[in-house]
Amino acid sequence: MYSERLKSELSKSRAEVGDLLRITKPRVIYEGVLMPKTILSSSSALTLKLASGYNVSIEYEEAMRIEVLSKGKPVEFVPAESLPEKDPTKPSVVILGSGGTIGSRVEYLLGSVYPAFSPQDLVLAVPELKQLANIEGRKIFDLFSNDVTVEHWKILCQEVQKEVRNGVDGVILTHGTDTMCYTAAALSFMLRNLPAPVVMVGSQRSSDRGSSDNYVNLMCSVLTACNSDIAEVTVCMHGTEGDEFCYVHQATKCRKMHASRRDAFRSINTLPFAKVWYRERSIEYLRDDYHKRGQGEFYLDTKMNPNVLMLYEHPNLRPEIINRLANEIDGLVMVATGLGHVHTNHFNDPLGVSIQEALENLIKSGIPVVFAPQTLYGRLNLNVYASGRKLRAIGVIGDGADWLPETAYIKLMWVLGHTKEMDEITKMMMTNLAGEISDRTINETYLA
Amino acid sequence: MYSERLKSELSKSRAEVGDLLRITKPRVIYEGVLMPKTILSSSSALTLKLASGYNVSIEYEEAMRIEVLSKGKPVEFVPAESLPEKDPTKPSVVILGSGGTIGSRVEYLLGSVYPAFSPQDLVLAVPELKQLANIEGRKIFDLFSNDVTVEHWKILCQEVQKEVRNGVDGVILTHGTDTMCYTAAALSFMLRNLPAPVVMVGSQRSSDRGSSDNYVNLMCSVLTACNSDIAEVTVCMHGTEGDEFCYVHQATKCRKMHASRRDAFRSINTLPFAKVWYRERSIEYLRDDYHKRGQGEFYLDTKMNPNVLMLYEHPNLRPEIINRLANEIDGLVMVATGLGHVHTNHFNDPLGVSIQEALENLIKSGIPVVFAPQTLYGRLNLNVYASGRKLRAIGVIGDGADWLPETAYIKLMWVLGHTKEMDEITKMMMTNLAGEISDRTINETYLA
Repeated sequence: MYSERLKSELSKSRAEVGDLLRITKPRVIYEGVLMPKTILSSSSALTLKLASGYNVSIEYEEAMRIEVLSKGKPVEFVPAESLPEKDPTKPSVVILGSGGTIGSRVEYLLGSVYPAFSPQDLVLAVPELKQLANIEGRKIFDLFSNDVTVEHWKILCQEVQKEVRNGVDGVILTHGTDTMCYTAAALSFMLRNLPAPVVMVGSQRSSDRGSSDNYVNLMCSVLTACNSDIAEVTVCMHGTEGDEFCYVHQATKCRKMHASRRDAFRSINTLPFAKVWYRERSIEYLRDDYHKRGQGEFYLDTKMNPNVLMLYEHPNLRPEIINRLANEIDGLVMVATGLGHVHTNHFNDPLGVSIQEALENLIKSGIPVVFAPQTLYGRLNLNVYASGRKLRAIGVIGDGADWLPETAYIKLMWVLGHTKEMDEITKMMMTNLAGEISDRTINETYLA
Repeated sequence: MYSERLKSELSKSRAEVGDLLRITKPRVIYEGVLMPKTILSSSSALTLKLASGYNVSIEYEEAMRIEVLSKGKPVEFVPAESLPEKDPTKPSVVILGSGGTIGSRVEYLLGSVYPAFSPQDLVLAVPELKQLANIEGRKIFDLFSNDVTVEHWKILCQEVQKEVRNGVDGVILTHGTDTMCYTAAALSFMLRNLPAPVVMVGSQRSSDRGSSDNYVNLMCSVLTACNSDIAEVTVCMHGTEGDEFCYVHQATKCRKMHASRRDAFRSINTLPFAKVWYRERSIEYLRDDYHKRGQGEFYLDTKMNPNVLMLYEHPNLRPEIINRLANEIDGLVMVATGLGHVHTNHFNDPLGVSIQEALENLIKSGIPVVFAPQTLYGRLNLNVYASGRKLRAIGVIGDGADWLPETAYIKLMWVLGHTKEMDEITKMMMTNLAGEISDRTINETYLA
């Protein structure tokens, strides 16, 4: 419910949900369509949908003036618990909520963003979604993405399984953007032969901020989920700072490359699967090598061993630190420099052990060591330098791979959920299971 | 010395150093100027400088035919120990060698690259360098860049100090590319108020390969060292895959972003200082906010505490691992997600401790925790999300910084070399000392 003051202002100006309003504040004027009040939005603010498609939340203040510019059709603004009847001519999409900024609101008291909105609220906030598909939504959990763990990935997979077995045409997972690519990669290994798209989507700005990207991202993810043939886990996020299109990224090859920009997500070492033009509502495919609907038999394989550490090679990294951790971990992803290098000297360790030797000892004790490139772009090659050849000889895994550090880490957890045999680990790691190793490098994808 | 067979082939065709030769092999023809044999190059190969400026090393084989297309002037091809007289009209530049591919040769027996060439050899291999400046070179050490540590940084600083106190116009440091930016950043904090440019240069392909970038990189670094006013530590490397220009990057803001491309080095969150057009031999400045010759009084400040660890935040990172390391380290750089986030939950730890709490305990015990962005691009902001505000409250350092993880790590080592007081550490870290924190983000630098 709105606060008494705001309610009285709205009633004085006869403003109703769906009306085009002009709101004049001392230093700013807003024009947009009045959105319904959701349970969780601030009681002292109203929400306008601007012409850009974005929602803006406007705090009540005394000097504020509300005018109705034109009366709207107060269409389908229904409470969450009574979503409209299904239209049998439209595809069906389920939005599963796991938290993140896309389902969050600003907490006015503290000025920070908290996870809050439900998937139903998202559908209410973007009524256009319903023109595309019959959409249902439910919240699986409500977490900051940094708090999502292996156990949550398993729950998400089970929920996806439930939905696709029920015949849904596509699944959308809302998720915080910070670790979205980790979750996307994990689900790629766990959900084998998906029968329908599973599109992960988030937003870099919360939905009641003027610059929120959730509108375009949601529209494009629904288009991908119901209209595309990409039966894989993908990440659908803004392609540019503007609102032209979203990219649909392969889950195992994408990365958040900027702390705040709306186009933070980039495919690394490969092209995105597609561009989705949101105004045109069309999908432009950039690749054709994705898993398609109906290929293979769908099954879940969620076995994972989470006891893997990702460690950054850096000058003065002490071998002793690796030795200390040897009893703590079942696998190590070493984020190495260049083509795949670590210290070979003894300068940093009183016992005269190099990082290379520390890794050799780990491998000898049965703990696999997987390399990934600190440069992010490019491909490991342990064949160019003498130090690389030595690493290959001691059994370091990853020669020739162009995987991301994050993906190598997720894959090692998944592989270690299946075997403890070093030969089998090596074989599984070096086999392309979910697009994580590209056959060839596409030159134009560097920093693009 | 050449092998008997190669020597006899060369003498049969009357080929001498400086001659333009055509060498015909079964599947390839080379045309170029015969370069002098260096002590360390293979005895069964000769080196031609191609029209592109690159050197190519051609292995002797029986089916090979050597023709002299035109006799050259066998100018100034002198042994390393007798470099030409100084030209008093030209600036003076010293090349200090620390190893890396730029001073390396291919070991034909193993097919791998070993550090080998001396700085003198570099000058001999690129005689054009001497048209630009009086160049002297000496080897400080010969290391793979991963083996360069704090102690080597101190030695390099002392050698630079020696040279600039002797009045040299510029210093060039050859270095392996893998950790070049770590060394460059370290030297930036250690060499205060430099009176002359210190240009770090390397190459992504070894000098006896056809595609080597050392020719253009060296030429551009000499131009920067003797003709520019940028009295800072910079990194001078290929700007594009072609040979148009090199970028001169600010040491604290650049990063190797590709495992193998010649244009692997990129400025992050800021523009490079300059482009150096190598054919035109001209410097195009992109910024003017660099430290200039003659500003301030030069001094060395090489105190560093190398006992710092860089740790990547990732799902399922166990707080226990941080607790284990608490007695091992004097500082931690946490490469956090997004705007600066880590786990806040208790799911991953049997003792119910979150990463956030583990960091809080570290800080309480006097170990500073510095955040840096996993996204590389963008700026930390611990003010947007509730979890960020909590981190700021417990004393995490880095709110508002747009530094690279590698630079934050180097800076924390340097700061810990100067103080153990948390307040002072925080103050020094958050003060811009060597360009590591940009005042404003330049939008066009994202993935450029």
